[in-house]
Amino acid sequence: MFERFLQARQHERDRSELGLLLTDCRQLLTEQGESNSLAIAARALARYQSLSTASLQQFFEVLATEFDPDPGDILLLAEKYAVSRSPESLVRLSKAAEPPRQELLRRLNGAPGATGIIVKMRENLLLQLRTDRKLLAVDADLEHLLSSWFSPGFLTLVRVDWNSPAALLERLIKHEAVHAIDGWNDLRRRLEPDRRCFAFMHPVLQGEPLIFVEVALLKEVPASIAPLLYRGTPEVAAPLKFKVAAFYSISNCQPGLRGINLGNFLIKRVAEQLSTEFPSLKTFCTLSPVPGFSDWLAHTATIEPGKLSTDKHRRINETLAAIRKRHQQDLRSLAGAVAAGQTKPVDEEGLRSLCACYLLHASRHAGVHANDLSAGEGDPVARFHLNNGARLERINAQADLSRKGIRQSYGLMVNYLYDLDEIENNHQAFVNGSVSASRAVTSLI
Amino acid sequence: MFERFLQARQHERDRSELGLLLTDCRQLLTEQGESNSLAIAARALARYQSLSTASLQQFFEVLATEFDPDPGDILLLAEKYAVSRSPESLVRLSKAAEPPRQELLRRLNGAPGATGIIVKMRENLLLQLRTDRKLLAVDADLEHLLSSWFSPGFLTLVRVDWNSPAALLERLIKHEAVHAIDGWNDLRRRLEPDRRCFAFMHPVLQGEPLIFVEVALLKEVPASIAPLLYRGTPEVAAPLKFKVAAFYSISNCQPGLRGINLGNFLIKRVAEQLSTEFPSLKTFCTLSPVPGFSDWLAHTATIEPGKLSTDKHRRINETLAAIRKRHQQDLRSLAGAVAAGQTKPVDEEGLRSLCACYLLHASRHAGVHANDLSAGEGDPVARFHLNNGARLERINAQADLSRKGIRQSYGLMVNYLYDLDEIENNHQAFVNGSVSASRAVTSLI
Amino acid sequence: MFERFLQARQHERDRSELGLLLTDCRQLLTEQGESNSLAIAARALARYQSLSTASLQQFFEVLATEFDPDPGDILLLAEKYAVSRSPESLVRLSKAAEPPRQELLRRLNGAPGATGIIVKMRENLLLQLRTDRKLLAVDADLEHLLSSWFSPGFLTLVRVDWNSPAALLERLIKHEAVHAIDGWNDLRRRLEPDRRCFAFMHPVLQGEPLIFVEVALLKEVPASIAPLLYRGTPEVAAPLKFKVAAFYSISNCQPGLRGINLGNFLIKRVAEQLSTEFPSLKTFCTLSPVPGFSDWLAHTATIEPGKLSTDKHRRINETLAAIRKRHQQDLRSLAGAVAAGQTKPVDEEGLRSLCACYLLHASRHAGVHANDLSAGEGDPVARFHLNNGARLERINAQADLSRKGIRQSYGLMVNYLYDLDEIENNHQAFVNGSVSASRAVTSLI
Amino acid sequence: MFERFLQARQHERDRSELGLLLTDCRQLLTEQGESNSLAIAARALARYQSLSTASLQQFFEVLATEFDPDPGDILLLAEKYAVSRSPESLVRLSKAAEPPRQELLRRLNGAPGATGIIVKMRENLLLQLRTDRKLLAVDADLEHLLSSWFSPGFLTLVRVDWNSPAALLERLIKHEAVHAIDGWNDLRRRLEPDRRCFAFMHPVLQGEPLIFVEVALLKEVPASIAPLLYRGTPEVAAPLKFKVAAFYSISNCQPGLRGINLGNFLIKRVAEQLSTEFPSLKTFCTLSPVPGFSDWLAHTATIEPGKLSTDKHRRINETLAAIRKRHQQDLRSLAGAVAAGQTKPVDEEGLRSLCACYLLHASRHAGVHANDLSAGEGDPVARFHLNNGARLERINAQADLSRKGIRQSYGLMVNYLYDLDEIENNHQAFVNGSVSASRAVTSLI
Repeated sequence: MFERFLQARQHERDRSELGLLLTDCRQLLTEQGESNSLAIAARALARYQSLSTASLQQFFEVLATEFDPDPGDILLLAEKYAVSRSPESLVRLSKAAEPPRQELLRRLNGAPGATGIIVKMRENLLLQLRTDRKLLAVDADLEHLLSSWFSPGFLTLVRVDWNSPAALLERLIKHEAVHAIDGWNDLRRRLEPDRRCFAFMHPVLQGEPLIFVEVALLKEVPASIAPLLYRGTPEVAAPLKFKVAAFYSISNCQPGLRGINLGNFLIKRVAEQLSTEFPSLKTFCTLSPVPGFSDWLAHTATIEPGKLSTDKHRRINETLAAIRKRHQQDLRSLAGAVAAGQTKPVDEEGLRSLCACYLLHASRHAGVHANDLSAGEGDPVARFHLNNGARLERINAQADLSRKGIRQSYGLMVNYLYDLDEIENNHQAFVNGSVSASRAVTSLI
Repeated sequence: MFERFLQARQHERDRSELGLLLTDCRQLLTEQGESNSLAIAARALARYQSLSTASLQQFFEVLATEFDPDPGDILLLAEKYAVSRSPESLVRLSKAAEPPRQELLRRLNGAPGATGIIVKMRENLLLQLRTDRKLLAVDADLEHLLSSWFSPGFLTLVRVDWNSPAALLERLIKHEAVHAIDGWNDLRRRLEPDRRCFAFMHPVLQGEPLIFVEVALLKEVPASIAPLLYRGTPEVAAPLKFKVAAFYSISNCQPGLRGINLGNFLIKRVAEQLSTEFPSLKTFCTLSPVPGFSDWLAHTATIEPGKLSTDKHRRINETLAAIRKRHQQDLRSLAGAVAAGQTKPVDEEGLRSLCACYLLHASRHAGVHANDLSAGEGDPVARFHLNNGARLERINAQADLSRKGIRQSYGLMVNYLYDLDEIENNHQAFVNGSVSASRAVTSLI
Repeated sequence: MFERFLQARQHERDRSELGLLLTDCRQLLTEQGESNSLAIAARALARYQSLSTASLQQFFEVLATEFDPDPGDILLLAEKYAVSRSPESLVRLSKAAEPPRQELLRRLNGAPGATGIIVKMRENLLLQLRTDRKLLAVDADLEHLLSSWFSPGFLTLVRVDWNSPAALLERLIKHEAVHAIDGWNDLRRRLEPDRRCFAFMHPVLQGEPLIFVEVALLKEVPASIAPLLYRGTPEVAAPLKFKVAAFYSISNCQPGLRGINLGNFLIKRVAEQLSTEFPSLKTFCTLSPVPGFSDWLAHTATIEPGKLSTDKHRRINETLAAIRKRHQQDLRSLAGAVAAGQTKPVDEEGLRSLCACYLLHASRHAGVHANDLSAGEGDPVARFHLNNGARLERINAQADLSRKGIRQSYGLMVNYLYDLDEIENNHQAFVNGSVSASRAVTSLI
Repeated sequence: MFERFLQARQHERDRSELGLLLTDCRQLLTEQGESNSLAIAARALARYQSLSTASLQQFFEVLATEFDPDPGDILLLAEKYAVSRSPESLVRLSKAAEPPRQELLRRLNGAPGATGIIVKMRENLLLQLRTDRKLLAVDADLEHLLSSWFSPGFLTLVRVDWNSPAALLERLIKHEAVHAIDGWNDLRRRLEPDRRCFAFMHPVLQGEPLIFVEVALLKEVPASIAPLLYRGTPEVAAPLKFKVAAFYSISNCQPGLRGINLGNFLIKRVAEQLSTEFPSLKTFCTLSPVPGFSDWLAHTATIEPGKLSTDKHRRINETLAAIRKRHQQDLRSLAGAVAAGQTKPVDEEGLRSLCACYLLHASRHAGVHANDLSAGEGDPVARFHLNNGARLERINAQADLSRKGIRQSYGLMVNYLYDLDEIENNHQAFVNGSVSASRAVTSLI
């Protein structure tokens, strides 16, 4: 009974906090608020951060309705502009058609520490958005503003090494998305003299990396991931012998920045910087996973005969059949066997040919969302690198024998090649529907 | 003849440069350009910077026409939105109503060093805008973006002192707008232990202050400017004896940021910081010029009897008449006489009363542009501080006996008082049309 | 056979390396070497670092003989000085009496990175010195120079926290000598907001702490170590509630700096800095181990009746007897029992009285080497703090129940109090042979 | 009368301050003082800084007498050491023979800010030393300690440019000893992209350069100073076209460091750093004054016939006669004429030959003090560079037409060449009494 009372009281407090927050928001938007606007913005953000989940949802809904623009106004001004085409009428129209919540968010952003809170706000909103499509326009506004504030021109490229602040390194351990970092010793291996790690930082998000990439400096293009990750006495090549920079992991740290392409810019900036530091570097490539491959094999893949020589077609289909049969079995036990080196899972050559089919197919629907790793058709990693202008260079069997690697791609990994002179052509080709690939890959089909 | 040929060739080269720039701009705006967009943006900005004045004008005109939004599209989408009010239709409408040049500028801004160039671009545009009102919407777009990128949350407050980089100090000498700095020795006086100077910097505009303020730490509210500026052995009060922080100069360094209010935030941040450093500080005030006063006296001023006691009214009118009579004479010789201390120009008390009339009047038309020092009615400095929430505290005669001081205000200067607890009330009062003033000032009328 | 050949060759190479090193050293000491002296110094240090253990020993021996001063010269000049007492003769005498290896080491120290190598050189020498007393004068010269180069005026006090470079934190984990740090999570607890860690750094030993101290900010003087070390949700007191700063660990990182007292200066600098940051702090104390206590109990302790009341004397002797009896048993099993809380080892009160006897005795032979934790009579930790001017404040039973704690002091720990106003008096008293102690401690006897 | 009373009182206060300072010094030297030694050292230094000139002199005298070592002790220990040659006796002897004031100065140096004060102390002492040779041993001790503390290994090389702190640049203006800097604009020219300035800094002397060098990056070896100093639009060569780095000015900033050779190390460090930054640089040279030349001509020069061909001998002697004749006239008017370009002073070729004689002679007495610009025989600048291993490359007529240039060397300047491969050989040759010179120079004789 007392508990219920406490809940009720908490509920009430929460409602009243939301009410005060909305009052602040309205005040911020009036011209009058300006003189004191930073103080109001700071107060509003503090209130926002104390909201319960329920109130948060309500807050987003108010953003989506009350802070929408007025359709009548817009219509009227659109008609005027259509007639006059005068700059004055355009200014008025643009202003009216921009949802007022954009101005609200800009004013909130004036407070110290605001930008980080707004990035988290979008992270929350994206969760809500899954079930509540009414918030679509609010999300569009947030993405619009964030992509302006996180312009690549505003970011600094930071080299991360063993002299970086422990707090920053801890973030890397937490956010590494491709090949998990197993504690500080594991991290240390990735920061040794034959390794590089770079992050994009935003000046107002102190100590919070936005995205980072891990690079191995090598003598040749790597064919498997284990030597890059695991410790041992690293046989460090003399700097002059580094010929290849292999990007083997790229991880976003800020879910609230989804859809804002930073990886693209990061890879190119890092390639530039490394080629200045090591003139001996001739090749920039990746060693990338193929996350959707085994799913595609199990469920989607059909190999049309027209595209292949008869021999290849037969062979591939046999492999595919073998795989599907095995798929009935526990995939886990398969993984175990492979990892133990006891058995080749299936015909390797056939597997690589199937992967070539998969990846060449992946480019078909490049389209608008090509940069978004989380959505769209085809292999997301392939789409990301191909759209960035990379070339599909080599498909490596037995390249990732970790559980995750076996499960998602039967251990296959791929090298994408960044030839700085060909990036623009490759990108254009991809946009027009064709994948740039080496002969080694095309000959697999 | 050969000269003409050279001119023609130069002209042609210039046109072709403009043509290439516009091609870059169009490419930047297509989805396809994204992969390589930073390289294109950098190239476009380099081309932009090489334009002749004539081509620059043309470039702005193309921005104003070709990169306008399409009225037909907007109208259609505005109708759809009016009917459906769906978030999807709003997203489409907002996107359509935003002039494409905004997206163009955002993409240009991704290149290294872009932001500084865009600020200069607006500086150029503002010059053009004086004679070409068609550029109004282009200017609105630039201001819109710049005010988002120069959000106070992105700025850092930097203390400037004698250990600051010489290159930064040189900027201060150049941009000081209120009381000119006469070389390095003069500057040094303003950076001694009983003085403070603070600037707002933007992380990507390295070494370029946006705005700075000069402060004197004193025992009492200052009544004239000379002791603050001129050297001598400064009789430095022990830090514990600093009671008053007097803001005696505030200068913008970036004409391209006109209309983006930074002074407001700067004064408040500095006041906060100083009150932490010196707990003994009790009073934050200004010592400010009255730039429009003598003009107003000479041409505009009429004193309505109803507002004053009969005595005062008579006296003030006598002063006004005396001033107008003198004004026939060379104002310069007057200045000389005053500076030499040979003669009081006119009745001092009457002059201060007239100034009170002028400043109390100044607030009448506060309105929308209250933050813009360069436009609007009434005294711009008064409008700036009153709208910021300051109070009109004291009018000082013989406070600025420099030529400029005599000419613009017969040597009068004003203290505006920033009482941190009253700022919001004062601001609200000002917005509602009444000026907060001390009894000392109101009793002058 | 071939192996022997290889060994012989290696041996020869080593001898030749030593020969070249000695040639460099001789050249460095001639006037002629100066122009190029840095290059020679760098080469010599590189050769030094490549020496085998055997050659190293030989090198030190040459330093101890060839680079000794000439007794005949000194004697002659000493006689001249005794007669003339002229400054010229003194200059010549001082120069002659300074072993030439001092100048050699100073010149070596000009090379980049030299100082760190010389610190390691002394670390090696100290090992050698245990068995070869001929090196005593070489060690004296090294200590003399290092104590000049590591003057407290040259050191910087650095706060170490979770934003410090990982490489620096790793050193802390490695060098913590009092309460071992068990990995990164354990370290993190010691860097949380209610903890402080400070290190002394030397400008040319980048990233190499010399000594560091760990401090807990608390509400009262701590009586046991476990709550300071172990994680849990730290119930962080609001900064204003911090009343006590407890130094609970102080560790040297450079064995090569033995005998150069830095801890003394570190504790005082940290106390000053903390009292500025937290004006609420009233008490600076330690929570210190008593490393020699159980050894003393087992072997040395005799309690003279005259110093105690009859009752106390009887009781203490019973405790001592009990302890000695138990000591026959395996001390380890005892420790286990205590740690498990199953048994009180002996009468706690008696144990604390014995400890008071031990520590009050410790001061007797303060003497010359009072600062050297590794040598001399009595408890080294007690000597260190008492000689620094601290007061023996409280003896805590069951304060360190770790194996090490039980073994060395039956779990007892001590608070030494640093009363900044009494430091000098306490120090003088200690030098004169009496220990400053609180009534709580003296009443134990 | 009252004045006399005031003087007397001041005198008394001064004496008492000196008394307290000496008490502090004695306490610092006792073992007992150590615990609190930093506090005592700081107090003593504050007292030292408040001494009047008279007391300062007395203080130095006490240092020279009371803090001398004991001759009897030394003699005794020297005899023991001569007999036993044991390390223990050596340690005791070295300790006894080191003047106690060295230990005193080392302990003073522990206080914050002490090092800078001690450098100034030596500056004062050097002034005193001119008239009071009793202080010789005190100076030797100070030089000994300072040369250890200002080891090149402890110094940092700092590039000075227009982004350096104004306070640092101000020091450069003040200390430039070779070609005076006429204010900030003049300084700025010397910091433009085709110029470099580097300084040595010591970590504890914040913002105080020890010595700095100015360098011009050029296409060829410069023949006159004016183009290097004076403004104009600098025709900046593209970095790839820089072939020559000309050191045209090197200035000490700390008179208290006299005799401690830093210039030598500075030039070599800068040459290394520049050759890394600009691989196109092939030549490192100076453009140096010949400060003693006209004095030598007027008073000292005698040209022995044996060293020259008959023709040359005749010609040079005519020149010498002409110069001596002219020297009767006002040298100033001569300077004026030369500067105005109206007259060649004397036969230029003969003048250059005389200069060659002068400089080749200069090396004869290289000896012990070769590094000390202020003492010894021959041209000090020549001795400095030749002893550093440079080669006498070219003698330039009409190279410095400033008043100072005309007066000290009839406008002649010299290029010394630093060939990094030949430095050691050249230095050795110089030490052995022969000057490395180019054929162009030797053929002048």
